Amino acid sequence: MKFSQPPFVTDLKCLICGSSYPHGNIFTCPHCGIDGILDVQYDYDQIRNLPALRDKIRNRSLDHWRYRELLPISPDIPLPHLHIGWTPVYDVPRLARYFGLRKLFLKDDGRNPTNSFKDRASAIGVMKAMEFGFNTIACASTGNAASSLAGLSAAVGLKSYIFVPERAPEPKFTQLLIFGATVFRVKGTYEQAFDLSKQSCDQFGWYNRNSGTNPFLVEGKKTAGLEIAEQFGKNIPDWVVVSVGDGCTIGGIGKGLREMKQLGLIDRVPRLLGVQAEGTKPILDAFASGKDLIPTGTNTIADSIAVGTPRNWRRAIRQVRLSHGEMIAVSDEEILEAMRVTARLGGVFGEPAGVAGAAGLKKAVEQKIVKSNETAVIVITGNGLKDIQSAKQAAGKEHLVEPTLDAVADLLEKQLKL
Amino acid sequence: MKFSQPPFVTDLKCLICGSSYPHGNIFTCPHCGIDGILDVQYDYDQIRNLPALRDKIRNRSLDHWRYRELLPISPDIPLPHLHIGWTPVYDVPRLARYFGLRKLFLKDDGRNPTNSFKDRASAIGVMKAMEFGFNTIACASTGNAASSLAGLSAAVGLKSYIFVPERAPEPKFTQLLIFGATVFRVKGTYEQAFDLSKQSCDQFGWYNRNSGTNPFLVEGKKTAGLEIAEQFGKNIPDWVVVSVGDGCTIGGIGKGLREMKQLGLIDRVPRLLGVQAEGTKPILDAFASGKDLIPTGTNTIADSIAVGTPRNWRRAIRQVRLSHGEMIAVSDEEILEAMRVTARLGGVFGEPAGVAGAAGLKKAVEQKIVKSNETAVIVITGNGLKDIQSAKQAAGKEHLVEPTLDAVADLLEKQLKL
Repeated sequence: MKFSQPPFVTDLKCLICGSSYPHGNIFTCPHCGIDGILDVQYDYDQIRNLPALRDKIRNRSLDHWRYRELLPISPDIPLPHLHIGWTPVYDVPRLARYFGLRKLFLKDDGRNPTNSFKDRASAIGVMKAMEFGFNTIACASTGNAASSLAGLSAAVGLKSYIFVPERAPEPKFTQLLIFGATVFRVKGTYEQAFDLSKQSCDQFGWYNRNSGTNPFLVEGKKTAGLEIAEQFGKNIPDWVVVSVGDGCTIGGIGKGLREMKQLGLIDRVPRLLGVQAEGTKPILDAFASGKDLIPTGTNTIADSIAVGTPRNWRRAIRQVRLSHGEMIAVSDEEILEAMRVTARLGGVFGEPAGVAGAAGLKKAVEQKIVKSNETAVIVITGNGLKDIQSAKQAAGKEHLVEPTLDAVADLLEKQLKL
Repeated sequence: MKFSQPPFVTDLKCLICGSSYPHGNIFTCPHCGIDGILDVQYDYDQIRNLPALRDKIRNRSLDHWRYRELLPISPDIPLPHLHIGWTPVYDVPRLARYFGLRKLFLKDDGRNPTNSFKDRASAIGVMKAMEFGFNTIACASTGNAASSLAGLSAAVGLKSYIFVPERAPEPKFTQLLIFGATVFRVKGTYEQAFDLSKQSCDQFGWYNRNSGTNPFLVEGKKTAGLEIAEQFGKNIPDWVVVSVGDGCTIGGIGKGLREMKQLGLIDRVPRLLGVQAEGTKPILDAFASGKDLIPTGTNTIADSIAVGTPRNWRRAIRQVRLSHGEMIAVSDEEILEAMRVTARLGGVFGEPAGVAGAAGLKKAVEQKIVKSNETAVIVITGNGLKDIQSAKQAAGKEHLVEPTLDAVADLLEKQLKL
């Protein structure tokens, strides 16, 4: 079966050399090689001139498909049934006060079907696999990209093959297996798992969902930016705060915000604050130096952003600069503290990478990068249940008590004294 | 500060003797003791005659507060900011075919803020604590009730004290601690933890969120029934399938469905299928015998429904009977299989108790209790990430491979042969 093309996509454009390619099943730019990430281009004039576009979007169901004109999907393919996107935005005054900010919001992307931001990308991935005629899709991932690919593949009935490095924590692949993914635990590093997944896609004819090089996935991530624009409208905060690993997420969100400005749906693009972990901050270093990225090791509790060789660093830096934004790095201790305060003062339990943005915002306020009279929204990119081991480090201890009132009274007294 | 009363609540009525009590901070019926569960009564005539009630509800935000006229909450108290309820309903044809059913839906309540159905109840709990002037709230729970209480308390700024039995699995209380709850791990059984929590509430002046005896919490659970009625409308399925532990959940959902009929918002009340675990089925036994409940031991992987001494068995059985429903029990093996097929054919990863309903429906179709030309919706009551240990038992194994294409090819060949 042949599906019609995404109606408003014009071409794919290399982020390095600017070469343009027609829409199709291609990955990076043939001239620039693996670094030549392609960016999906749309006919924005045509989209802007669609009759009653704004009303059309407003009347659609509250999920990320409401922006379908801005997504590279064929109208012939049924949308996955899982509810993706339109995650809640919470006004959290107690957390704002704690951070010393006038107004603060959390956008809880841990509320997606497999509990992370990555569902936005995987949803596009499975649509493209079907459009290009694949019945199998594969990726290399230690975490959320994999579980979301497994969940979305199960939802639409695709076979999924997932490559994880040997050291990946077991709870993370339980979620893959339960969705029926075939999991290859590769005796080697993440890089080896990544390479093997790519070779296997070529060899066995599987669609490649690796978000580093697949040009379409970032379009799914973009929807968080589109949503922030629509959810806040005229009251869009001064800052949008995002944790940064590969660079796709902040790159996508930045693109989405700019598109909404371009379409006249918001008046100004907020500044992006990109947050990396101190132990893995190659994009921040490249942002600061203005030079090409130098790969680093990975050393942080926030495994979902522990990417030493990020593929989308140019996209990330470009969007941060276009927004007049900033980047900052946080320690694991700051991430664990953010985990506690985001839960206790914001009511949202995020995984380490999910709350790294909160840690970064706190630091940025302290360093007066973000002013106390400004407003911000933090994108919480993953649910804390994804990584209970790290949460345990942040959580503190329970009290073992005898089953008597006296024992409880004793403990309360001790607690009051602390 | 004094808050005005819930505007449409008339009284609280004992489910055993029928005695009526005015709205207030009371628990069970003074005549009937601990078994005398009180049921919140409303002035349905007044609610029905509210101008444009249906439109009013329809125009509200998509969460469980849209039914505020049917909830025992004071209009003076700000609603918690977390997005609760209006969980997605999925049409899952592949799972329907596998079960041998014409049409099947999943309602994924694992999408609530702390990832279980219990958030609906805890949200009411914290509202009542504030209404009655408490700044601390407590409960005994091994699982979802506790994490949802911790999360909702954090959201509204209440202190929470939670009593868990010594044997409770550690990941379950990490979620409590991260939200800032004080956790008492009681050297004893669940019953001892329960008793100690009650005594402590009396002694230290805390509000008691134990859903067994608190009359208001079940009103929160009711909202899933209200939602099912509104989400399906005229196309309401023949069966609503719910896993049963204490009896509150099915009792609440039944009440919600009946209220929507009473208000003219649906034409007929679907039949309830209550599902217990074979190792812990006191309510099913009482349902079958027509006699009073006899407490049992607890022996099932589905810990969220492992309740040997359920407090709300009368409410559960009454609602099942009123709906001309049925009850059924499933083995742990059937629950693990349901976990797999719900994930693989439905795209939803539920915890064991969360998918017990799916296991029960499959069995009920096999036993022709549910006919193959009927339709059903299963309420998935909790997210699978809550209990990764059990999921591991259901999930199968990953494949350890050398980082070479040959190794992958070998494995694929073996897999094809299986």
